[in-house]
Amino acid sequence: MAAPLTGPSQSMRRLRALLPQVLDSVDCLLFDCDGVIWRGDEAIPGAPQVINLLKERGKRVFFVTNNSSKTRKMYADKLQALGFNAKEDEVFGTAYCSAMYLKTVCGLQGGKVYLVGSNAMSQELEAVGIQQTGVGPDHIHGKQGDWAAVELDPDVKAVLVGFDDHFSYMKLNRAFQYLTQRDCLFVGTNRDTRLPLEAGKAVPGTGCLLQAVETAAQRQAQTVGKPNHFMFDCVASQFGVDPSRCLMVGDRLDTDIMLGSNCGLKTLLTLTGVNTVADAEVHQKSGSAERQGMVPDYYVESIADLLPALQG
Amino acid sequence: MAAPLTGPSQSMRRLRALLPQVLDSVDCLLFDCDGVIWRGDEAIPGAPQVINLLKERGKRVFFVTNNSSKTRKMYADKLQALGFNAKEDEVFGTAYCSAMYLKTVCGLQGGKVYLVGSNAMSQELEAVGIQQTGVGPDHIHGKQGDWAAVELDPDVKAVLVGFDDHFSYMKLNRAFQYLTQRDCLFVGTNRDTRLPLEAGKAVPGTGCLLQAVETAAQRQAQTVGKPNHFMFDCVASQFGVDPSRCLMVGDRLDTDIMLGSNCGLKTLLTLTGVNTVADAEVHQKSGSAERQGMVPDYYVESIADLLPALQG
Repeated sequence: MAAPLTGPSQSMRRLRALLPQVLDSVDCLLFDCDGVIWRGDEAIPGAPQVINLLKERGKRVFFVTNNSSKTRKMYADKLQALGFNAKEDEVFGTAYCSAMYLKTVCGLQGGKVYLVGSNAMSQELEAVGIQQTGVGPDHIHGKQGDWAAVELDPDVKAVLVGFDDHFSYMKLNRAFQYLTQRDCLFVGTNRDTRLPLEAGKAVPGTGCLLQAVETAAQRQAQTVGKPNHFMFDCVASQFGVDPSRCLMVGDRLDTDIMLGSNCGLKTLLTLTGVNTVADAEVHQKSGSAERQGMVPDYYVESIADLLPALQG
Repeated sequence: MAAPLTGPSQSMRRLRALLPQVLDSVDCLLFDCDGVIWRGDEAIPGAPQVINLLKERGKRVFFVTNNSSKTRKMYADKLQALGFNAKEDEVFGTAYCSAMYLKTVCGLQGGKVYLVGSNAMSQELEAVGIQQTGVGPDHIHGKQGDWAAVELDPDVKAVLVGFDDHFSYMKLNRAFQYLTQRDCLFVGTNRDTRLPLEAGKAVPGTGCLLQAVETAAQRQAQTVGKPNHFMFDCVASQFGVDPSRCLMVGDRLDTDIMLGSNCGLKTLLTLTGVNTVADAEVHQKSGSAERQGMVPDYYVESIADLLPALQG
């Protein structure tokens, strides 16, 4: 077990001994999903019990994920199947949050989106009244000289890039033509470079696809997911939570912990996913003020470490 | 017409008045292709006459392109069809040069390459004795949990990324798995972000695909194309040219002009493609020593501007 850490501006502490006070100090816990409560299709051992006991103790629990491949309903179904006591309105994924962002921040209601993304994303868009085009395969066809003249939908006002296992050169080209031939909003769900699976494996994440489109368009997308505070704003505006009494729990420093820091939440790193304590120490010792936002207040080996205090 | 420019470290001059002296001072001219001698499938007006007259005057002419979608033979055929007097061994494209790079610099002879690229690239690889796998469509299949276990060829020792109109999420994933599951070389043909077509249009370039793979692998590829001096080394080693008596002619500052600067060649920007004189002035005035390498010695509106001097 790693020893407690102290740094120039902030100390990062193993949570176990402090757990009763920390739990008393919060009313609300936000959990990232991949690498925190599950890996791929398997729950982290002990995670369902932790979530369910927190709720029994009267804590509010939310699931805040950059993964855009599922609707809120699909996440609720997966959570329940893995033994988590969870409801649809407790889930804030980037499929849902991107739709909310386009509707509320961009004012796109009624407009149409060129979507590099999943069926889940199109369902969440349509649920808030935004039409989309683009989901599904789009293979190369025709001669190179005709690709710049590929058919574009005249109603499209925004390009939205999320996780898309049908990503292709033609989709990249179509997004590029929308972004350069007309005045189009450009939104991405998130910048995660890898999607962690079971047993330390991973596949390329949405950040890779977004980077390809940005490189072509020579334009940066506005991203909705963590560490952008919009994900927390969605939770706060719907449930009236007090940031100072919230704990953000995640496995990534640049998304989960940074979101917590950006929004004034307490932060807890769990070591069952992407980052290590050593990664956090590098940020801590960097002397960069911005990178201090990636240093968590606390860390645990696994969220199962919360179990003894909750069962006691 | 723009006026002559002077800068702190270098002056950039319109060529017309100086043309006889400049042509006398070189034995060899290297021409980029897209945006310089043609756009898409149409020759720049006057370009074939310029090339053919240069040769009649005893100059050596080479075609040096970052475009990886054709073999040397295919380029020679296209050049001849458009009226250029050109031979296969005068063409140095990144399909050919990448194969040479893997064979001579990386010593991969006999090894196998996972190729994100074209049939032309596979032909150039096979011509130097390197086997490849990967060309053609590779659509998504199976469940997400299985993608990290996608079948990998045990003989693959390098990942090569070039222009690939069949680029797909599965190809990105396969490249990522090769690069992270084993000790693999990582080579890219070039970083051009866009491929210019006729009438100011463009489609996404290889740089976008390479960026996606690099973002996933969190590793930088070695790129073979301009501005890397390897392209010029290929010409120089095969034809024994003297760099100080060469003129590099191109439309891009970051590839063509930079290559010339990197190799000690004279440089000429032509304004029929990507960059403008204003772009060059920004580099000139930046005060950055590295960016002075993107300031050409001379510029012309079009290489057709060379015609009067050659016809006179």
